[in-house]
Amino acid sequence: MDDLVRRAVENLEKVRARRPLIHNITNFVVMNFTANALLASGASPVMAHAEGEVEEMVNFAGALVLNIGTLTDTWIDSMIKAGQQANKNMTPIILDPVGAGATRMRTAATRRILHETSVKVIRGNSSEILALRDEGSKTKGVDAVHTVDQAKDTAIILAQEIGSTLAITGAIDLVTDGQRTVKIGNGHPLMPSVTGTGCAATAIIGAFNAVDSDPVTATATALAYYGLAGEIAGNRSSGPGSFVPALMDALYSIKLGELERGCKFIEG
Amino acid sequence: MDDLVRRAVENLEKVRARRPLIHNITNFVVMNFTANALLASGASPVMAHAEGEVEEMVNFAGALVLNIGTLTDTWIDSMIKAGQQANKNMTPIILDPVGAGATRMRTAATRRILHETSVKVIRGNSSEILALRDEGSKTKGVDAVHTVDQAKDTAIILAQEIGSTLAITGAIDLVTDGQRTVKIGNGHPLMPSVTGTGCAATAIIGAFNAVDSDPVTATATALAYYGLAGEIAGNRSSGPGSFVPALMDALYSIKLGELERGCKFIEG
Amino acid sequence: MDDLVRRAVENLEKVRARRPLIHNITNFVVMNFTANALLASGASPVMAHAEGEVEEMVNFAGALVLNIGTLTDTWIDSMIKAGQQANKNMTPIILDPVGAGATRMRTAATRRILHETSVKVIRGNSSEILALRDEGSKTKGVDAVHTVDQAKDTAIILAQEIGSTLAITGAIDLVTDGQRTVKIGNGHPLMPSVTGTGCAATAIIGAFNAVDSDPVTATATALAYYGLAGEIAGNRSSGPGSFVPALMDALYSIKLGELERGCKFIEG
Repeated sequence: MDDLVRRAVENLEKVRARRPLIHNITNFVVMNFTANALLASGASPVMAHAEGEVEEMVNFAGALVLNIGTLTDTWIDSMIKAGQQANKNMTPIILDPVGAGATRMRTAATRRILHETSVKVIRGNSSEILALRDEGSKTKGVDAVHTVDQAKDTAIILAQEIGSTLAITGAIDLVTDGQRTVKIGNGHPLMPSVTGTGCAATAIIGAFNAVDSDPVTATATALAYYGLAGEIAGNRSSGPGSFVPALMDALYSIKLGELERGCKFIEG
Repeated sequence: MDDLVRRAVENLEKVRARRPLIHNITNFVVMNFTANALLASGASPVMAHAEGEVEEMVNFAGALVLNIGTLTDTWIDSMIKAGQQANKNMTPIILDPVGAGATRMRTAATRRILHETSVKVIRGNSSEILALRDEGSKTKGVDAVHTVDQAKDTAIILAQEIGSTLAITGAIDLVTDGQRTVKIGNGHPLMPSVTGTGCAATAIIGAFNAVDSDPVTATATALAYYGLAGEIAGNRSSGPGSFVPALMDALYSIKLGELERGCKFIEG
Repeated sequence: MDDLVRRAVENLEKVRARRPLIHNITNFVVMNFTANALLASGASPVMAHAEGEVEEMVNFAGALVLNIGTLTDTWIDSMIKAGQQANKNMTPIILDPVGAGATRMRTAATRRILHETSVKVIRGNSSEILALRDEGSKTKGVDAVHTVDQAKDTAIILAQEIGSTLAITGAIDLVTDGQRTVKIGNGHPLMPSVTGTGCAATAIIGAFNAVDSDPVTATATALAYYGLAGEIAGNRSSGPGSFVPALMDALYSIKLGELERGCKFIEG
């Protein structure tokens, strides 16, 4: 766990020093919030979704973040195009399957992205992640995941089947590549009362994967940093409205020593 | 009026307890603000506009909110599709005819929605509501509505003609189904200086209609709650910028007793 | 310089009194932020991009603001349509070539807008402005602009070649029509850490051009007002999150005397 804490500090330092360009093809609701969260973290956001420019744009990027909220067909085509170019460049792809499982279109879009591109990390809540299972999954009998420990066994099998690192976020976050598993205890109860807090987590996972080639450590340390900013913001705000500016301020202001002391990685 | 105050408290309590899913097909400018206003009020927002998923998504919803700002043709088609499915499910539709009367496209879109779906509540400012009149309207001679009392007579006739409950918002809000009329005195002068405050009112009207089957009481109590949150926010902010987080905090924090004491329903 | 200070005060007074309608065809990331910045400044924003209504909408406008972030082909067509109608009405067009130079699509879109409409003012950072040069430009040997004084000579030639007033914003802003040149020293280091601060500057330039027919004085005074609001906000905030509401509050609250004392126009 001490290694992870050191890695968290190292990754934040690198993001702030290198300012990696993060290319987002994301939903309309969270574009502004996501861009500001990336800027506050030290990264450089770009939002571009036109089929005519996504391949060119992703060439400049340290990570590609795909988010299927407010999806339409042309956007899926752009995501695939950008994703295939990212794969050629060995640029990590981070997928946020917003609402997978809720409509056939979202489930199908998620599967198409996973089939036609190679996704390094997928972040969602437990029901979105369970929706990624196909008919042949060993976990198909599992209908719901109520605790992070129930999630753990399912997620390990799914990560192996899909071949991506999975991040299931909630009160406790869980990151696994099917071999290694890390739990993260940072976060604040106000976060689910603000739209886009999950989407912004995915984008910051993108920024950390741009500077750390190990998806498990990159993702777990991004979630610890983001969750710690949430804790600081929660303590300084009086509701979900004042939480938003306080979160950005915290992402921007957290000192490396503060992160070192504040990371809550959990064994097992 | 005491009945309405009791109903306001009851409705807010129900929204917070049941967390109804509110399906929004709304404009790009206010998506984030609207989602956060619904979350702060206790409801669960979803934004989805693709023709391929709107019917499936609206099946989960307690209300469908249609908002024609930043409109294009494909969005109107999605609104109609979602609206017809909502009608099948008896799910209330709330319409915000942003800019109706300003361009032919917006006026035509509003009329098409009213013609092809059954809309339960329409919220707009007085000029948007007047734009709903067709050639045969008894109110056609009325060219402008300057006071809430002038608005009242016109709105009553229009509500009967259209067959929807109308909410005209302004310094004093007015709600009528053509039979019963309620005025609401809550609100704050900073609200028109923030984009989307009208659109968010419409969304919260959606949340209240999801838990109260009477559109007049649902709409009037939603406007009292929202306007009271505006008053609290106005007292805690130093301009339209700090008003936004303060409004979300107030929507989230208002206690039932505070709402009971703060509602300003006006006779006549 | 005293003339410019007087003009700044006069322009802000006019914007607040006349509340000009500013028609924006802009990117998804900044729509909400831009609309709120315009409202806080006293102007009336409208966002409308459908080909079916842009010509009608721009007829009501005091300025048309075109911004090519998150661009797709249909949006370019709408911008051209709105722009040609604006030209017929003698309504000033302000262009923000976001990311020009980064992808071929954005560079081509910028050139198409400049070719098919008559643009009064273009605002960008130095690399976006340099990307406007065509093969025949006298400045083509200049590969980068590192200081505002290097920018000055290039910008003067470019403004003459393009026939628009150029505004290059950065730590020091520069405005030139190829004959007259003004530098503005207002602003705050937190501004680049918030998404959309450049786009909102462009929109406020639109509002000032709606009340002042001289593009150099309109643009320079808009940047002084906006930059001063940034300074006030920077002094009242603890990071890029709290900067956002503080900026809106400052735009809304700046008194005319405060602007008179705070403008930093620089000779040469």
